[in-house]
Amino acid sequence: MSFPEFPGPLFTDLYELTMAAGYFDRQMDDPATFSLFVRPHPKRGYFVAAGLQEVVDAVTRFHFSDEEIDWLAQSGRFNRDFLAHLATLRFTGDVMAMAEGEIFFPEEPVLEVTAPLIQAQIIETYLINTMGVASLMATKAARCVHAAAGRPVVDFSLRRTQGSHAGMAVARSSYIAGFSGTSNVLAGKIWGIPISGTMAHSFVTAFESETDAFEAYANLFPDSAVFLIDTYDTLQGARNAALVGNRMRKKGSALLGVRLDSGEMVALSRKVRRILDQAGLPDVKIFASSGFDEYVMERLIAGGARIDAFGVGTRMGVSADVPYLDMVYKMVRLGDRNVRKVSEGKITLAGEKQVFRKIAENGFFNGDVIGLRDDSPDGKIALLAPVMEKGRPVGPMPTLEEIRARFAGNFERLDNRHKRFEDAEPYPVGISERLMEVQKGL
Amino acid sequence: MSFPEFPGPLFTDLYELTMAAGYFDRQMDDPATFSLFVRPHPKRGYFVAAGLQEVVDAVTRFHFSDEEIDWLAQSGRFNRDFLAHLATLRFTGDVMAMAEGEIFFPEEPVLEVTAPLIQAQIIETYLINTMGVASLMATKAARCVHAAAGRPVVDFSLRRTQGSHAGMAVARSSYIAGFSGTSNVLAGKIWGIPISGTMAHSFVTAFESETDAFEAYANLFPDSAVFLIDTYDTLQGARNAALVGNRMRKKGSALLGVRLDSGEMVALSRKVRRILDQAGLPDVKIFASSGFDEYVMERLIAGGARIDAFGVGTRMGVSADVPYLDMVYKMVRLGDRNVRKVSEGKITLAGEKQVFRKIAENGFFNGDVIGLRDDSPDGKIALLAPVMEKGRPVGPMPTLEEIRARFAGNFERLDNRHKRFEDAEPYPVGISERLMEVQKGL
Repeated sequence: MSFPEFPGPLFTDLYELTMAAGYFDRQMDDPATFSLFVRPHPKRGYFVAAGLQEVVDAVTRFHFSDEEIDWLAQSGRFNRDFLAHLATLRFTGDVMAMAEGEIFFPEEPVLEVTAPLIQAQIIETYLINTMGVASLMATKAARCVHAAAGRPVVDFSLRRTQGSHAGMAVARSSYIAGFSGTSNVLAGKIWGIPISGTMAHSFVTAFESETDAFEAYANLFPDSAVFLIDTYDTLQGARNAALVGNRMRKKGSALLGVRLDSGEMVALSRKVRRILDQAGLPDVKIFASSGFDEYVMERLIAGGARIDAFGVGTRMGVSADVPYLDMVYKMVRLGDRNVRKVSEGKITLAGEKQVFRKIAENGFFNGDVIGLRDDSPDGKIALLAPVMEKGRPVGPMPTLEEIRARFAGNFERLDNRHKRFEDAEPYPVGISERLMEVQKGL
Repeated sequence: MSFPEFPGPLFTDLYELTMAAGYFDRQMDDPATFSLFVRPHPKRGYFVAAGLQEVVDAVTRFHFSDEEIDWLAQSGRFNRDFLAHLATLRFTGDVMAMAEGEIFFPEEPVLEVTAPLIQAQIIETYLINTMGVASLMATKAARCVHAAAGRPVVDFSLRRTQGSHAGMAVARSSYIAGFSGTSNVLAGKIWGIPISGTMAHSFVTAFESETDAFEAYANLFPDSAVFLIDTYDTLQGARNAALVGNRMRKKGSALLGVRLDSGEMVALSRKVRRILDQAGLPDVKIFASSGFDEYVMERLIAGGARIDAFGVGTRMGVSADVPYLDMVYKMVRLGDRNVRKVSEGKITLAGEKQVFRKIAENGFFNGDVIGLRDDSPDGKIALLAPVMEKGRPVGPMPTLEEIRARFAGNFERLDNRHKRFEDAEPYPVGISERLMEVQKGL
């Protein structure tokens, strides 16, 4: 199931419609192929594909309602023939795409659409928006999972994402990338993602004392309690938590953990660990959340923090260091000719393409080649597969758990030297001879 | 009308529900007041309030559906009594808020909710998310409008916003902040925002020649044509545009403008201006769009660029330099006591508050005072007004045009020294004596 619902074909830049009107007027509706790819970014060595299911759902159902056509008509911009064409327009084309959870690199097409020109053009804005936010967030989340080095990471970003769609995309994409769960209840309902969360500072301040707040919570949630211990004084909070934790043990339940949400985390987590251990509670976990992202988590772990699991919020949920992908959707073939825009310093590869991945004997990714779609794979894996044919999905989409497993399998086969947060070694991506010849021929 | 629809009460962090269960269990449902405000950010001297209408619409209709209650029940986390309480829960509280289009400053409450504790708590995630994205984008857009120094600015960001909700919020918020329009067609339909857009590079490449593409477009849109001239060579593109522009003139129509989308804009715009002028087309406007934000536009104008209007995209649409506000929602009163969380380096002001603004004789804003709600206004303007009482909106919300006019009136009364992009002078915000006494008393 997708969320949110497809906002409809008017969720588009106006120029998609004016261009479509221009094509229609000239009866230019030859099959065109558009390629969706991401331009290089100095802070991102790899990207994680996500958002495909949402796009396939929307494109399958793409149509203009009567109300939408009426509104376009009264706007006075378009003539009657064109509006009549729009009223019957459905997507009847083909889509080749990388599966969600695939790892891809700059310039590699993650998706190619082949359809009559107007159809292929008119879905551009929605396609980039949806694939863009989902892949941006999956990529950021993968970096966080890498930083956490095996410790569970939970998405706590919902309040600070850029709107509700982003909030849902972050929960789904971060789960794909290996997060253990999310605070987002709706994401739990829609996709079955494990949800977690216990209390905020306001809960603690609502009681007469911190210990009262912990007791009240423990009575109600004896098997899943995590006490937030930094409302007043973190070390005293740890002692209060230990007190209540020991009372819980006597009653036959067990305190799951404590949460730190402020302060100098290395020293603090070590002191809290000591307090819990000395209170005979070595199994009580330390959760931490406080402006974390991959950079902070890496530093904390390297510094010896005793943190068992991370809550990652705002900076992950808006991909703060790289808040957008330079994702573009470019026409690469029209009718029987390969085309491209030439622009300084930017590459667009004409022609219908495929991405081939070499796998080394040890199973690691060993370099990609962008080629023509009908290049010989030559022992390599072809990453683009048909997902829509003649406007219909080719088959059932993978489940979220399958996507998550696919990503996990991929990520462990990408060498750590490509995952470094600074000065990552670029992953080698070449261009096939035949694809190069096409470019020279233009 | 709001867009998107309120995603429902499960669009929340789990801890809002577990805390609510805790309060319910202890029958703690005294009236509580929560304060929504933004913490200081070195790159933002002022903020623009937006998102209130969406919040009021949602809170008014806030309820759990049977399906949502069933899902919570089967999750096994909550007991029957609490779920029965949720099933009948409506928002019955009061909301004081700044109007949309108001300018506010760090630490000032932009909204305060007073309601039974559970109700006030349970809307937190949605409230911060919605007010956050709308105000973030209105603030960013206001900076762009300031940079453009009177030239029209159009929102071109839709494809790169973080999801569909953000795309709609950006169109609405940037219009509030003084943008002339948006490329977002749905925003035109829902809110009547002027929409604009003509062609992409793919349109130009779809024709045999650039001139053919321009001719085709001009035939169809003789009164609103803007030719994109940088697909191949910008100066040749300008000459081709002039050629077609002069042909249009002979037919009695007029080319509206040309658009530059790449290259060194100062030199290029000046050369293009000369080409158009020499071709006898001094009225043809130059539009430009190319990774713009307030910093780039300020530099281009200072450098002498001949640009008549700006299309602003990605960096505005994700607020790239500051991709999130540190917006928080803190309990400041519970029952009959003022409360606050104490944390190092962060201020939360206990008590139900009001923001008072001094207006100088010349009409300019002359400093704010955060006070208690019943402080004497003393000739100052009180910015928080009732917008909901007992769960119902107090009156009709202002129209988008009224909000836009309110912002324009405010913005011209904020001195330029507070609007600088670097080293802006902080706007003075004080705390009233009575509010200070409340803090000391805790």
